[in-house]
Order: sequence, then C-alpha cells, then structure tokens
Amino acid sequence: MYSVIVRGHMMIAHSLRGEVFGPAQALHGATYLVDVEFRRPDLDADGIVVDIGRATEALGAVVGELNFRNLDDVPAFKGRNTTTEVLARAVFDRVVAAIRRGDLGPGAKAIESVCVTLHESHVAWASFEGPVGPVASAAQ
Amino acid sequence: MYSVIVRGHMMIAHSLRGEVFGPAQALHGATYLVDVEFRRPDLDADGIVVDIGRATEALGAVVGELNFRNLDDVPAFKGRNTTTEVLARAVFDRVVAAIRRGDLGPGAKAIESVCVTLHESHVAWASFEGPVGPVASAAQ
Amino acid sequence: MYSVIVRGHMMIAHSLRGEVFGPAQALHGATYLVDVEFRRPDLDADGIVVDIGRATEALGAVVGELNFRNLDDVPAFKGRNTTTEVLARAVFDRVVAAIRRGDLGPGAKAIESVCVTLHESHVAWASFEGPVGPVASAAQ
Amino acid sequence: MYSVIVRGHMMIAHSLRGEVFGPAQALHGATYLVDVEFRRPDLDADGIVVDIGRATEALGAVVGELNFRNLDDVPAFKGRNTTTEVLARAVFDRVVAAIRRGDLGPGAKAIESVCVTLHESHVAWASFEGPVGPVASAAQ
Amino acid sequence: MYSVIVRGHMMIAHSLRGEVFGPAQALHGATYLVDVEFRRPDLDADGIVVDIGRATEALGAVVGELNFRNLDDVPAFKGRNTTTEVLARAVFDRVVAAIRRGDLGPGAKAIESVCVTLHESHVAWASFEGPVGPVASAAQ
Amino acid sequence: MYSVIVRGHMMIAHSLRGEVFGPAQALHGATYLVDVEFRRPDLDADGIVVDIGRATEALGAVVGELNFRNLDDVPAFKGRNTTTEVLARAVFDRVVAAIRRGDLGPGAKAIESVCVTLHESHVAWASFEGPVGPVASAAQ
Repeated sequence: MYSVIVRGHMMIAHSLRGEVFGPAQALHGATYLVDVEFRRPDLDADGIVVDIGRATEALGAVVGELNFRNLDDVPAFKGRNTTTEVLARAVFDRVVAAIRRGDLGPGAKAIESVCVTLHESHVAWASFEGPVGPVASAAQ
Repeated sequence: MYSVIVRGHMMIAHSLRGEVFGPAQALHGATYLVDVEFRRPDLDADGIVVDIGRATEALGAVVGELNFRNLDDVPAFKGRNTTTEVLARAVFDRVVAAIRRGDLGPGAKAIESVCVTLHESHVAWASFEGPVGPVASAAQ
Repeated sequence: MYSVIVRGHMMIAHSLRGEVFGPAQALHGATYLVDVEFRRPDLDADGIVVDIGRATEALGAVVGELNFRNLDDVPAFKGRNTTTEVLARAVFDRVVAAIRRGDLGPGAKAIESVCVTLHESHVAWASFEGPVGPVASAAQ
Repeated sequence: MYSVIVRGHMMIAHSLRGEVFGPAQALHGATYLVDVEFRRPDLDADGIVVDIGRATEALGAVVGELNFRNLDDVPAFKGRNTTTEVLARAVFDRVVAAIRRGDLGPGAKAIESVCVTLHESHVAWASFEGPVGPVASAAQ
Repeated sequence: MYSVIVRGHMMIAHSLRGEVFGPAQALHGATYLVDVEFRRPDLDADGIVVDIGRATEALGAVVGELNFRNLDDVPAFKGRNTTTEVLARAVFDRVVAAIRRGDLGPGAKAIESVCVTLHESHVAWASFEGPVGPVASAAQ
Repeated sequence: MYSVIVRGHMMIAHSLRGEVFGPAQALHGATYLVDVEFRRPDLDADGIVVDIGRATEALGAVVGELNFRNLDDVPAFKGRNTTTEVLARAVFDRVVAAIRRGDLGPGAKAIESVCVTLHESHVAWASFEGPVGPVASAAQ
C-alpha cells in the first residue's frame, strides 16, 4: 500500500460541553496541525498517489473554511462538540468530498482510504481513518 | 476508525543480555518518549475516544512506576531483557489493565485496540499494538 | 554561559485589533508551546542552572493562569493585542516575578536572563529575551 | 504486533517528467529522511524485532547507494519517475532483499512486513508498506 | 529583545567543489527548511515585530527564486560553493533587501537584525546572523 | 556570524546527589540528543564553517566515550553530579579540545565559539556556550 501525506494547519476558538472537559468547557482555542494521508494500492502512470500540489491546495481549502474562526458559531457544528476527534472526521469528510468532486485530479479517484490526524499540542493528537467509498458517503 | 494519542516520558537505566546488544550489554540508560494510541470505531456521546485528561493521568501512572529506576532491579522484568519492544508491550499491558479497571472512565471500555510507541532516540523507536480484548488478557 | 530550557503549553482564544491582522481580527485561538530558557554564567553547588522540576512547576503555574481562556476577557491584557510577541513578554514577566519571589528556589536568583519562546504553529514562533534585573522590573 | 523503526537520510538530485509536476520537472533535489519499520507478531529470544544496530547498517547501505547522486543517472530508475512514492518502494525492495539475504541476522527472517516512509519536507511525506513475502518478490 | 520566526522550505540540486566535500562533489540535492528570525528591541503599535503574513510571503518570494532549481546553473552563485552556510547568507541578504524595500511593511524597518537557519537534514543545519544595517549593506 | 550545527546522541545511566533531585537521586538514565554549534564570523575558502563530516565524526568520538555507560563509574565525573548542564559542559570541553588538536581540520581553528545543547526529553534541555579560547582553557 502506498501513502502520501501533506500537512496544513488552522487556528480556531471553541468551547466544549460536558463535565468530562473540565476547564475546556470555557471558550479557549487551539492550533491544529492537520495531516492528511491518502492511500492506494498502486501508483498512477506518473508514479504518484496524488499530486502533492493539488492535495496541499485541497487541504488548504478545507482548513481555510475553519481557520481563524470560533467554531461555536459555525453552523456545521451546531449542537455538537468540536473535539479533536470530531474535527478530524470533519476534515476527513471534506477531503473525501474534494476527491469525489475531482478537485485532486481524475487519478485521485483511485484513492481507497484517507487518514486525517490533528495535532492539538506536542503531547496530544487524534485521527480519523476510513475508506473513500461507502462509509464516508453516509458520513456526517 | 478514530484514534486519540497522548505522550509521556520516562528516564530509566538498564542493561541487556545477549551478544546481539554489543555495548548495550553494559549498564546504560534511555529517555523514552511514550505515545499511547487509543482506537475505537465510534465516538461516545461527548464526541471523544477517551478523556485526554484521564488518558494522560493513566499514562503518567504507568510511566511513573518505571521512571527514575534501574529496570534491572524491577521484579516485573526479572530474567527478561527490557528492550524497547518489551517495554512497549509492558506499557501496553498496564494501559489495557487501566482501561479494564475503569481508570479512564466507563466510556473508555469501548476502546478496541491500543498501540504504544516508545521513542528511544530521534533515530530509533518501537511499538506494540494489540486489541484490548482476548490477546491482552493472555499477555506476557 | 549555561542554559536550561523547559517546555509547557497553553490553549487560548483571542482576537487581534488592527488591519495588519487580516482574518486574525476575528475571534480564533491557538495552542502555544511555551519554552522558557534560564541563563547564568556558573552552575550552583548541585551542578544546575535551576531545578528542572521547580522550573516546570513555575511554568505550569504561569501558563495555568492563561490556559483554556479567552484572552479578550483577561483584565491584564485589556486594551492590548495579545500577539505571540506580547504573550512571550507576558510569560517572561511572570517567570521573572516567580524567580524573584523565590518560587524556583534561592539558587535561582543567580539567573541572569530569561528567554521565552512561544510556538504558534510548526511554521511560526516568537520570543522575548531580557535580563532578570532592571529591564524586567519596569516591564509591562 | 511489534514494530521497530530506524531512521536514516539521503540527499539526491532528480527531475520528474509529466505536467503534473509543474516546476519539479526541472532538475532539483531533496533531502529524504528515511524511516524503515519492521513488523512481526512475536519477539525473538533476545526480546527484539530486529537488531537495531544491524537494521541501521542495512538502511545505511541502502541509502548509501543513492545518497549524493543524481537519480536521473541511476540505471535502476531509467525511464521512471523517482517520485517520493517510487523511492519509498525502491527502499522497501532493497530492505526486503537485505532481510532475505540475512543481512539483518537470521532472526530477522521472521519479519512479516515492512513500511518505508520518506519525508521530503516538514509538510509532505510518502510511504510504501507491504509483506516481506510474495508481494515483494514480484516487486518493482 | 523580541523575535519572530517564520519557516519555509526549498528543494534544490547542486554540487560542491573541493576535496573536503567528498561524495558531495557529485551532483546531488537537498530540501532546506528555511527559518528566518526577525529581531527588534520594541514592538510596534500593533504589538508585533513584523506582520507574520508578510514575512511569510517575503520568505516565500526569496525561496521561490531558488526552489526547484539546480543551483550550479544560477548566475548569482557562479564560481561559488552553495554550501548550507553560503545559502543561509544568500537568504539573509535577500530578506534584508526585502525589508529595506519595504516589502514587509514600513514598521519592519525597525528590525535590527536577522538570523537565517537552513536545516539540510534532521542532523545538520547552519545559520547566518547579522544586523540589517551596515554589515549587510556590504554583503555578498 | 555563521554557524553550523550537527546532532548526535548518547544513552547513559547515572544518579544525582542532592535533595533537589528528588527521585532522580536513584540510578536511572537518559538519552541525550547532543547538538554542537560551531560559530565563526567568516567562512573559509571552501565556503564552510567546518567540514560537517569531520564535525560529525568528532562529535561521534566524544559521545562514543560516554555512550552506553554508567556515568557514576566514569572517573572524569568522580565526585560530581552529571547533570544535563554539566554534561553539556563536558561535551563542550571535549569538542573544543578536538578543535585545538586539529581533529576538525586546520580551518576549524578559526572557530570562535561553540554551543553544546543536550536534550534530555521533548520537554527539557540544557546548553553550555563559550569561546574556543581562554575560558575553555581553564575549563572543568
């Protein structure tokens, strides 16, 4: 299996509901380093999994929608906790949608699965991994 | 599949028996950066894999037992080599036990698998990954 | 010259005023990795610059005051932009005050200068460096 | 499953053919950090996956063949694009061959799979993962 | 003293002349992570050393001139070795020129010194540091 | 001012005397990532501060003397605490001696100062910086 991974980042504010979050129930924020891994069993005719330039642009577009925002005010997350796990899934869904729309090029449709990792600090990170196919189509 | 990873560290002395270890047969030591990954297919009602605070505390308790010690004198490792691989497994077993005891909260019992990675330097690391269920119960 | 550096982190929300900040004028947030460097020309009788344990606790106390907060609501920053540079200085001032109060131990009073670095992402960071003496006494 | 990972690096020149590569069609270069992960379900009698010293030497031999070269002139890559993905596979094939030749010791023949990751920068990396057995025998 | 640091990167081919370079006399290449530090004793009215956005763009313009090139063919380096040190200086000179031209904004003219660090791998890096004023004016 | 930095590492056991060290008074150990920075105002005729290959070998020789040892048994440290600060100084003294002996080549004698940084974990490190000349001659 081949993989290509590109990194971006976003800086957001949010608050979390639930006693489990302790002081993180207050409005605070995070820088998320966002790594997106694209996987497929074979390379295309150019010898690549995906065009790294287009993958980086697609990731930039996804994080650009969330960057410099207070996620408590973003309609897509209304009524939900924007935990690192939930955000990893949200980035996953948006990247998968971009693949399907052809934003990463026609060859990228051969990508079988994607794994998104969000680093919230040097001591904690989270990820969501899934197929580009059926599971994601029901996603979120 | 969702994952959450937390990082801790420990600083230990030990020696290794066997010609394969060359100069590492002498008493020496290591700082291990210890990453524990928790995996489950779905999030709980709060939108998390595990409470990062409790996961960090549980990891702190596990490495706290070994930190600042000479592992050659730790009964649990008597007659065994405390290689990075063996220590990754030892941390895995202790983290899985903590999950089962409920130290990470009742929701954490839905965690399906755990992967522990120990970094011994910037150029070498090792890990052990396994299910929280049957395999671990027979562990080592 | 000897140095010791310890790392902590904090996760905050804030907004910045001024056209220069573009989209960062909106409420957003950041994870700051916070590195504090302590410098002195000679070691104490124990062979240290500062007790790393106490330095880490002192840093924890400083970032603990700001962690999980919206800095727009913190009185100490009223009317000021909480840029990475300003926050580096704010941490510096608080660490220097802790040194003077003796929180890092009596030996730590021999520390001549401190440098605080805040990493806002993997591609941008800022620092403030100054003497523990006169400059800081007029600080902020 | 147990893993051991060792890191090396190589500094090469190359050019890439195909419009998808844009400016990377020109002769340029890269430093690749090369991580090789060795995986097996059980440890050997010494408590290891593989001798880290021999693994590091074997990796050094593999990258040593490519280091400080213009890959456009290396016969093994004639007519092919030396993308990060292709190079990850090339390192994989050479490491697997080394395992089979016994360069990593007789115990290393129990290694079931290998994953090679090449970091081309702090924001992009690629990997190839496969079994040591049948798939690799047909490799490249 | 305040500092702000931004990171970019470039991927180049080159060869080095002189026996001291051993195998690096052959045409090879490197990924350079390029960190530029801007220093000044006081912040501007917005509370910044320099606009991080403009600093990142200016760095992008500087590395963009060299990225994806064979430095052996770049006239500016004719007859000179493009060692990591020399390239650090070349980036320094170009960044200083950008400051003077006002590319980083009028406030950036208060920057007193700049330090450029080029990481050629995870185990070697080099830097050049100098004042924005007189020394640089005679540069290169 | 130009700098070149090379990284090595060593894995040692030791214990520390003094109440300030708390649990680190017991025999334990550390992996130290060891960064040595060489500084000089001008480059040599080859365009370098120091031959990175020879610098890496010299660092390898220095850490090779201490690697895989229990520092409590090393005569050079008899009666002294081998804190990270003291070890940074010990590496400094040995690197400076190597420069003076000509181990880094005749050109390396133009190096004016050296800074040695030892990383004991991802959250703590220490350094010693000094001139190659008079201060070091009285060292230790």
